[in-house]
Amino acid sequence: MIRAAVVGATGYAGAELVRILAGHPGAELTAITSRQYAGVPISKVYPALGGHVDLVCEAYSPEAVGKKADVVFTALPHKLPMEIVPELVRQGKRVVDLSADFRFRSAAAYEAAYQPHTAVDLMEKAVYGLSEIYRKEIKGAAVVGNPGCYPTSVLLPLIPLIKGGLIDTGSLVADSKSGVSGAGRSPSLTTLFSEVHESFKSYKVTAHRHNPEMDEVLTREAGDPVHITFVPHLVPMNRGMLSTLYARLKGDADGKKVGQCLSDFYEKSPFVRICNDGRIPDTLHVRGTNHCDIGFRVDEKNGRLVMMSVIDNLVKGAAGQAVQNMNIMFDTDETAGLAAVPYPI
Amino acid sequence: MIRAAVVGATGYAGAELVRILAGHPGAELTAITSRQYAGVPISKVYPALGGHVDLVCEAYSPEAVGKKADVVFTALPHKLPMEIVPELVRQGKRVVDLSADFRFRSAAAYEAAYQPHTAVDLMEKAVYGLSEIYRKEIKGAAVVGNPGCYPTSVLLPLIPLIKGGLIDTGSLVADSKSGVSGAGRSPSLTTLFSEVHESFKSYKVTAHRHNPEMDEVLTREAGDPVHITFVPHLVPMNRGMLSTLYARLKGDADGKKVGQCLSDFYEKSPFVRICNDGRIPDTLHVRGTNHCDIGFRVDEKNGRLVMMSVIDNLVKGAAGQAVQNMNIMFDTDETAGLAAVPYPI
Amino acid sequence: MIRAAVVGATGYAGAELVRILAGHPGAELTAITSRQYAGVPISKVYPALGGHVDLVCEAYSPEAVGKKADVVFTALPHKLPMEIVPELVRQGKRVVDLSADFRFRSAAAYEAAYQPHTAVDLMEKAVYGLSEIYRKEIKGAAVVGNPGCYPTSVLLPLIPLIKGGLIDTGSLVADSKSGVSGAGRSPSLTTLFSEVHESFKSYKVTAHRHNPEMDEVLTREAGDPVHITFVPHLVPMNRGMLSTLYARLKGDADGKKVGQCLSDFYEKSPFVRICNDGRIPDTLHVRGTNHCDIGFRVDEKNGRLVMMSVIDNLVKGAAGQAVQNMNIMFDTDETAGLAAVPYPI
Amino acid sequence: MIRAAVVGATGYAGAELVRILAGHPGAELTAITSRQYAGVPISKVYPALGGHVDLVCEAYSPEAVGKKADVVFTALPHKLPMEIVPELVRQGKRVVDLSADFRFRSAAAYEAAYQPHTAVDLMEKAVYGLSEIYRKEIKGAAVVGNPGCYPTSVLLPLIPLIKGGLIDTGSLVADSKSGVSGAGRSPSLTTLFSEVHESFKSYKVTAHRHNPEMDEVLTREAGDPVHITFVPHLVPMNRGMLSTLYARLKGDADGKKVGQCLSDFYEKSPFVRICNDGRIPDTLHVRGTNHCDIGFRVDEKNGRLVMMSVIDNLVKGAAGQAVQNMNIMFDTDETAGLAAVPYPI
Repeated sequence: MIRAAVVGATGYAGAELVRILAGHPGAELTAITSRQYAGVPISKVYPALGGHVDLVCEAYSPEAVGKKADVVFTALPHKLPMEIVPELVRQGKRVVDLSADFRFRSAAAYEAAYQPHTAVDLMEKAVYGLSEIYRKEIKGAAVVGNPGCYPTSVLLPLIPLIKGGLIDTGSLVADSKSGVSGAGRSPSLTTLFSEVHESFKSYKVTAHRHNPEMDEVLTREAGDPVHITFVPHLVPMNRGMLSTLYARLKGDADGKKVGQCLSDFYEKSPFVRICNDGRIPDTLHVRGTNHCDIGFRVDEKNGRLVMMSVIDNLVKGAAGQAVQNMNIMFDTDETAGLAAVPYPI
Repeated sequence: MIRAAVVGATGYAGAELVRILAGHPGAELTAITSRQYAGVPISKVYPALGGHVDLVCEAYSPEAVGKKADVVFTALPHKLPMEIVPELVRQGKRVVDLSADFRFRSAAAYEAAYQPHTAVDLMEKAVYGLSEIYRKEIKGAAVVGNPGCYPTSVLLPLIPLIKGGLIDTGSLVADSKSGVSGAGRSPSLTTLFSEVHESFKSYKVTAHRHNPEMDEVLTREAGDPVHITFVPHLVPMNRGMLSTLYARLKGDADGKKVGQCLSDFYEKSPFVRICNDGRIPDTLHVRGTNHCDIGFRVDEKNGRLVMMSVIDNLVKGAAGQAVQNMNIMFDTDETAGLAAVPYPI
Repeated sequence: MIRAAVVGATGYAGAELVRILAGHPGAELTAITSRQYAGVPISKVYPALGGHVDLVCEAYSPEAVGKKADVVFTALPHKLPMEIVPELVRQGKRVVDLSADFRFRSAAAYEAAYQPHTAVDLMEKAVYGLSEIYRKEIKGAAVVGNPGCYPTSVLLPLIPLIKGGLIDTGSLVADSKSGVSGAGRSPSLTTLFSEVHESFKSYKVTAHRHNPEMDEVLTREAGDPVHITFVPHLVPMNRGMLSTLYARLKGDADGKKVGQCLSDFYEKSPFVRICNDGRIPDTLHVRGTNHCDIGFRVDEKNGRLVMMSVIDNLVKGAAGQAVQNMNIMFDTDETAGLAAVPYPI
Repeated sequence: MIRAAVVGATGYAGAELVRILAGHPGAELTAITSRQYAGVPISKVYPALGGHVDLVCEAYSPEAVGKKADVVFTALPHKLPMEIVPELVRQGKRVVDLSADFRFRSAAAYEAAYQPHTAVDLMEKAVYGLSEIYRKEIKGAAVVGNPGCYPTSVLLPLIPLIKGGLIDTGSLVADSKSGVSGAGRSPSLTTLFSEVHESFKSYKVTAHRHNPEMDEVLTREAGDPVHITFVPHLVPMNRGMLSTLYARLKGDADGKKVGQCLSDFYEKSPFVRICNDGRIPDTLHVRGTNHCDIGFRVDEKNGRLVMMSVIDNLVKGAAGQAVQNMNIMFDTDETAGLAAVPYPI
């Protein structure tokens, strides 16, 4: 059994980690921490877990966590992980960090989007945890920087086509839409029910921090500088994320080649479902699961490819992909703990 | 392995049966039927199931179903099951019927609420599948009449207190609220998004067919005629049901005795969680699960007990309880297939 | 023109007052105040108002407000109005207070539910602003205590029947359901979108502060002590409130007499619509309006009357009724500013 | 007083016309028709209207409608208006048609997207009712083809910039999102609450019939063939539409010039609000109103302009713009009947 700890277990992503790990057949959830709820059973914070998870939140201590766990999931706001992950690595722990702190290879790019980084060496050695793309590197990683939810939904559809030379990397637009749980559990005016319900809006237009994260990975995969225009929107729903992607097709690329390229690329990736039959992806089809469904159409009149990808922002966009990465790191079946039959609605 | 078939697999309750049975460690889902979608893979009807369930819907035939299954779940509109269940029983199959056709012991009561019954003998022998109350009878039953969602949420809190003599059965009121999935998947004006969203209303006030179902069971348990005033409401959410119950306390009954009575009664019932710590039940705490959470308060000023019970109408209120009943019938662990760690939100 | 000021204009009820008064044909909105947004145009706080209302929020000063207004609406949390209303009254201003501070006649009752009252004299002289019931008193009032949203929805259906002797005042239960806007605009965990969506729950069961408010008015109208069992619930919608009321019919009272009594009572009350044709009230039918729709059914089996009333919690439950009271106080058409044709959905 | 009739008054757009016209200070709603509800008071179909509109739906007859009205609004599915509008025009009536039948100038374009047109002559003479753009032509029109909701939200932001030469018409993408009321009131699986709630999806990707409508107008305004890539999405909300538009800036165009161009163009258009202060448009800000709010940002890294426009799909996207067109046709104040102060939330 893999012994796992969750640091920051009471945010939405942390609680989702608790859910998945507590039901994981090859892992044991041995410790959960929370500053705000230290001493409180997690089932008091999330009564749904009553009778299922009897762990009590503890205040974080590197020693206690290190003693109990082989792998540590850090589900904290950025800036905190860079302070605690180095010590965990020194103890020989493997870490999956769900913040932005270990997602970038370029310190300059990180610091331009966030703030000064205090563990640049470790950051440079960390592996970007986009499971389907970086399996080999993840396997041996000490620290995995788990991808942002938006980048996951944008990169999975685009990377195969970029590598396959099917799309023009100078033409990329990502129009993304996210459920409200992505904004986290801290009370704020912008996520109050009455402000979100019957509301649809964009935010941080062309200025979201997930944009440079996408750009770095796209650039790496393309071998040339890539900048994608990225506009996130807030949808009055809880879980779910959809990205609509626009790109010019290159040369003689067409819908058939796009479908073939995606199907081939993800042939051995059980969580990615390519909608080759024309099905339109719907967030409801992936709710509560680790799937990413990808559909597409070609606008024949101007040779523009439209792709639609959906994920559950808390699962494939956060906790689920983190556990998938743990499975890869520990050479377990990649779907372990993530294989439950999805809810039909 | 228990071989199970679902007749009527494409309605919401049927699809939920598919989900649970496809993930059940001790059962094998061998056949699913649908009039409307015969020949269509269930994963085309519910794309969420893609990659998880590869069964194709077939038109119903008693021979085909009988050959493939030990237990048959009939998830059809009332009136249809009474026509097909007798033949299945003749074949020695065990049946869990999710319609109203086998819930009543009194044909007169059934016929007053529904229409003439064509299998009265079988109906009278059937067992009411309120799992926690009728375990012993369910175990040996050929046919289980799976309870309605409203009766489940109303009876589980009331029966222990009635049997314990704590409440006045002449004073009962059930004010119930249901998510929209309870209305099923047939398109109708009343369940259109634009008619339900930002709408809250009662319906079939004191005239709902689940009322005589409750009355029959309450009367049986009380040993005296009981009629509960029952008012259902429609909540703009998908899954979830809450019943607020009002009853006069009898004699020296108080909150402490109520809590004790409920805790004792459900001590060995893992799906019923009594909120003795004052927690207020919330449909979100049981979403997607087979739990029934029960909370309560006493209005000291007039000696009235208020109870709140929540279930997921498609799980404990339909498919989940049906599988729980199958588990009881086949002497399996009662929680098999129903034990997944719940989603925190 | 009546010159009106709104003190506390940026909460949901305050903003709704701004909307109604800015469109009122017989009133002029001359001043709006806000502690948090002093100096900020209201159209920055609520961009919907852009191009319609160009007032700037000011910090509250009794002199400034007194100079500009004949009537002052105080839309502040309880405890603040008792501090500022006396001075406004001394200036000869008429006041409609939307908090609880001037709703009670009994200081003891107020102080048991809230905290010590520092303006008891004024409180005792204030008039309870349930417009349809206390028109005559409101007309001459210096201070109107605008009713709570729950009491409005509970008292309007009950009072005519109590006065008509049709129901047993010892048997009253109010099971009420409110949209989330009733909880106000201050960020809190309990009103975050992700905590409310797909959630239905009761709260403050038998312990809500609107309960003694109802009891005081019911007692006054009945001429005998009345205590109603009151349970509020939170509905995942924005605007709207429904109360389901239960009472034993007295003597030979029946549905017809109930309908007649209500129709007669509210014959000259344009905002109250009695559903004598069997229509079931729906919050969607009163959304954005000052209406209260009242429907009813009799449970013949046990002689229990069930009534359903719906209001928009921010309009008839707050700002709309406040303006209706202003209209009464200033001898204007009672519907002025409140007569817009409602949205069909 | 302008005498107005609504043909097809019980669909969502028709009912919204009833609401607006019944409250219009310069118009009198004299007749409403409905095939399905002939003989039924509109307040039975939409109880919100009770006490406000006492008209009874009648079966359509050209004589009856012609006798009662000066202007006729046809709110019917496409193909029906082309059959009845010619006769109304012969009677000298002026017509605002809310279907697609009179939106196109090119019969070939219409017929490619819809079906054969039986009143091509009239169609060619009709005026496209995008009020802010075609005021002059609308004024004298016998028949106005009221724009589709999507085209309204897409064309209002783009046309000024195209005419101003600020954007490359070969680079246009419209990623649009609509509330569910746009799908109408006919029951269908795709608009059931349980299928829409917690769901977000695209539909008719690059294949929506509003695409050729946009293309024809864009081409006319640009003076050169334009094709915009258009992808609509369905949002789990009732009213509201947001279009996110992407275009390459031309020459030295920048954000400042874009803002100036839009502000100048719409200086005398009270319903269009340009967010020059950086405000992000939100469907909640225009809910229930005839406004179109337009915001924008420039992605400096690749010179791409992002525009966001929001409307209420039933008002500016349908009934509101239709009444605005009537106002223009009858030389009334353009905002008459449409000037109510918006709801803050």
